[in-house]
Amino acid sequence: MTRFYDERLDGEIATVDRTALKAAIVAVAPDLTLLDREEDLRPFECDGLSAYRVLPMLVAMPSTLREIESLMRVCFEHDVPVVTRGAGTGLSGGALPLEKGVLLVMSRFNRILELDADARIARVEPGVRNLAISEAAAPYGLYYAPDPSSQIACSIGGNVAENAGGVHCLKYGLTVHNVLAVDIVTIEGERLHLGSEALDSPGFDLLALFMGSEGMLGVITEVTVRLLPKPEVAKVVMASFDDVERAGKAVGDIIAAGCIPGGLEMMDNLAIRAAEDFVHAGYPVDAAAILLCELDGIEADVHADCERVRGLLEAAGATDIRLAQDDAERQRFWAGRKAAFPAVGRVSPDYYCMDGTIPRRELPGVLKGIETLSAEYGLRVANVFHAGDGNLHPLILFDANAPGELERTEAMGGRILELCVEVGGSITGEHGVGREKLNQMCSQFNADEITLFHAVKSAFDERRLLNPGKNIPTLARCAEFGAMHVHHGELPHPELPRF
Amino acid sequence: MTRFYDERLDGEIATVDRTALKAAIVAVAPDLTLLDREEDLRPFECDGLSAYRVLPMLVAMPSTLREIESLMRVCFEHDVPVVTRGAGTGLSGGALPLEKGVLLVMSRFNRILELDADARIARVEPGVRNLAISEAAAPYGLYYAPDPSSQIACSIGGNVAENAGGVHCLKYGLTVHNVLAVDIVTIEGERLHLGSEALDSPGFDLLALFMGSEGMLGVITEVTVRLLPKPEVAKVVMASFDDVERAGKAVGDIIAAGCIPGGLEMMDNLAIRAAEDFVHAGYPVDAAAILLCELDGIEADVHADCERVRGLLEAAGATDIRLAQDDAERQRFWAGRKAAFPAVGRVSPDYYCMDGTIPRRELPGVLKGIETLSAEYGLRVANVFHAGDGNLHPLILFDANAPGELERTEAMGGRILELCVEVGGSITGEHGVGREKLNQMCSQFNADEITLFHAVKSAFDERRLLNPGKNIPTLARCAEFGAMHVHHGELPHPELPRF
Repeated sequence: MTRFYDERLDGEIATVDRTALKAAIVAVAPDLTLLDREEDLRPFECDGLSAYRVLPMLVAMPSTLREIESLMRVCFEHDVPVVTRGAGTGLSGGALPLEKGVLLVMSRFNRILELDADARIARVEPGVRNLAISEAAAPYGLYYAPDPSSQIACSIGGNVAENAGGVHCLKYGLTVHNVLAVDIVTIEGERLHLGSEALDSPGFDLLALFMGSEGMLGVITEVTVRLLPKPEVAKVVMASFDDVERAGKAVGDIIAAGCIPGGLEMMDNLAIRAAEDFVHAGYPVDAAAILLCELDGIEADVHADCERVRGLLEAAGATDIRLAQDDAERQRFWAGRKAAFPAVGRVSPDYYCMDGTIPRRELPGVLKGIETLSAEYGLRVANVFHAGDGNLHPLILFDANAPGELERTEAMGGRILELCVEVGGSITGEHGVGREKLNQMCSQFNADEITLFHAVKSAFDERRLLNPGKNIPTLARCAEFGAMHVHHGELPHPELPRF
Repeated sequence: MTRFYDERLDGEIATVDRTALKAAIVAVAPDLTLLDREEDLRPFECDGLSAYRVLPMLVAMPSTLREIESLMRVCFEHDVPVVTRGAGTGLSGGALPLEKGVLLVMSRFNRILELDADARIARVEPGVRNLAISEAAAPYGLYYAPDPSSQIACSIGGNVAENAGGVHCLKYGLTVHNVLAVDIVTIEGERLHLGSEALDSPGFDLLALFMGSEGMLGVITEVTVRLLPKPEVAKVVMASFDDVERAGKAVGDIIAAGCIPGGLEMMDNLAIRAAEDFVHAGYPVDAAAILLCELDGIEADVHADCERVRGLLEAAGATDIRLAQDDAERQRFWAGRKAAFPAVGRVSPDYYCMDGTIPRRELPGVLKGIETLSAEYGLRVANVFHAGDGNLHPLILFDANAPGELERTEAMGGRILELCVEVGGSITGEHGVGREKLNQMCSQFNADEITLFHAVKSAFDERRLLNPGKNIPTLARCAEFGAMHVHHGELPHPELPRF
């Protein structure tokens, strides 16, 4: 396990130029839509992480499986890298194009192929929007559970690539828990079907391997998702606290009592005030923190759970506890939470959205740590958390026009993620690694682990043509970043270049 | 993806004999317990699948991590295959030794290293018994959820290797849903830590890949499991049906209503009568089938759920519905189910226990299919199912002393598994593939899929020294077995030997 992998980036791999590549593709897929004029490429230069922008060599927008297969075979033959793009809402630059690569845009694969209400499954193409699945299932009283904030726009293929979560993933799981099967096309143009409707599958769990693989193992061409019955009733309890750490501890108390809320969210004072000012949700603007706890299920269960949660919140020292009186008030409570990011955007010229995950019990300590870092760097932080599952979204407020503030912000962001790793957490909750967090991967994993990731990658894509330079850093990058343990001046892998 | 892998079996790979190997191991691990006398090896010749028996070249019983590392390095150097064995309760021959291989017995790794009741996790060595974890957690009101029938004896390391389930996995998931991290030693003697306490982990999901990998990717040396709070209340409803298919349909109705029972089990008349005769559980011996539905949680929830389930069972045509009046009666109802296998053993000289999984909606049709096969082969079948998750355990009754009956039984078993695959299910629910179901893997997967499994295997164990000849068949075996599609007399991979 001491092989060395270089990072294949723009310009290092091209064996054909744009014209030759285009000709080769047209020869085998004459009807495939290809874009190559600058004004047509421009809309695809970045995804939701606009800090990185690259124009791809070529954009391909296939309409059929056969076109994808043909395209992959041509790219494989000519050693051209392929970046697959869903709706482009990703926040970590996972769909950032390569200058010498093809950007495969899956937006035309947007049909719901089958919706079996009895079996409670939907078979959909990857370009189908997350919310569109729930809308199609609604007449049957069903819905698709994972609900990232971008669910109006994001596509299910991208959800699989990033293993997307959302407000309700505490109770209903991440994408990995709600997908039964995927169809893929490999870089060599072969079709594979991974997973099944059965509970378990023999052999290795390649389906789980695909979840969160960020386009590095194959092109997703179909997704079979599990649908759930819509809960009969949903109630929201809002609790105020005069101390952030106490709110953090209350989260642990609720879970420890064996109660699994549909959603359990936390906002600190800065986030509360920004949201209240923006959408008038009815939040207590003087509270140091609020918890929003949604309980859903059948009527009798929800009633009993609300009483239990109220008791736990009182015991945890909540200064005020309010049960949304009707569905309109419940929606208002959530509207504030869902608008928290844009709301913070109104009180600061810029903000940097972090995404880390920690064991729930570490919540009070990490909140304290963020407070200390905030003072150290002189930067305000608004905290908005999927508290129930320990997924933090600290928003660092800064002004990109103030000299040095961006750099200070990035440095502080890195410290927050390191803090997450230190307490046993991870550098991403639901936004993925993409291009953005390659360096942080070096803090999270050691050289042997990263080598193993590359070996698994090679099992699917030996030439490393699928989305190179994302998700998994090279050992060279980690050595350069300085996060790797260097013993007596020796690099762990002597064959590494010394720069 | 057209590489070819041969099956490495006994005698094909040895580069050292027993004496030389032993000397090499003793040189680096002088205190490691090694067994090599026939009478010492005999107890390890098989696991729970006694149809296959092989004496290993050497048994190693390490007590320390360092001993495992040293052992692996020696085996790697000398190209000696390693089969890891937990408690040996597996039913598919996954721990079957190799004549020219080392059997690594993990029974001395039997300590609970940490039990954090607040964080609700336990860190244990792989040789710890499944039930011992729940026993250790009981004083804190916690337990470990997956409960295979062998839970008194089976070890958590084996549970990970087989992705074990149990009666309660419908609600609480398989092993993969209840393990947070594993430590492993690779075939090259390197330590790795996979997973974390955080909800999601960046990079590829190698933890999920390890679940059910049957000892082919690495040696598990530590497991961090999630503990759950013991449900406040558990109630069992028993419903009788005068028609097996109607009972099968009732299962779907309960799940479709959004109710998730702690356990939902089904037994047919033959199984009912055998169990009643054996343990006097209070079963209706004239019923064509019974359903046992356990509802657990907090008092108010369970009460409401029982009423709903009763209504659904009535609507589904149950002829009798009984709620266990107290915990003693509940235990009796379960005792019958848990004793079903040995009970069937009392009414037939031999039985063959199948393990397949199907989409729940296919339950009525597959039950019908098994009935037809039973008539066709002239063999009785007792059906005992984890009905809620579509995991079937048909027991084929036969007499091994009657000429041809064993062969007829195996043939019929194969047909049942093919039926499972045909309806979108899989050839194993919780017993694994091991040595037993290599041929059935050829029905389940095509050549590209099997090639991909081998490629993933190679990422961890390029020389294929870990548990060779289990879990993943070679393409040659599949071609021989005849399950692979042969187009116009051409094998899919021309480089395959033609025998």
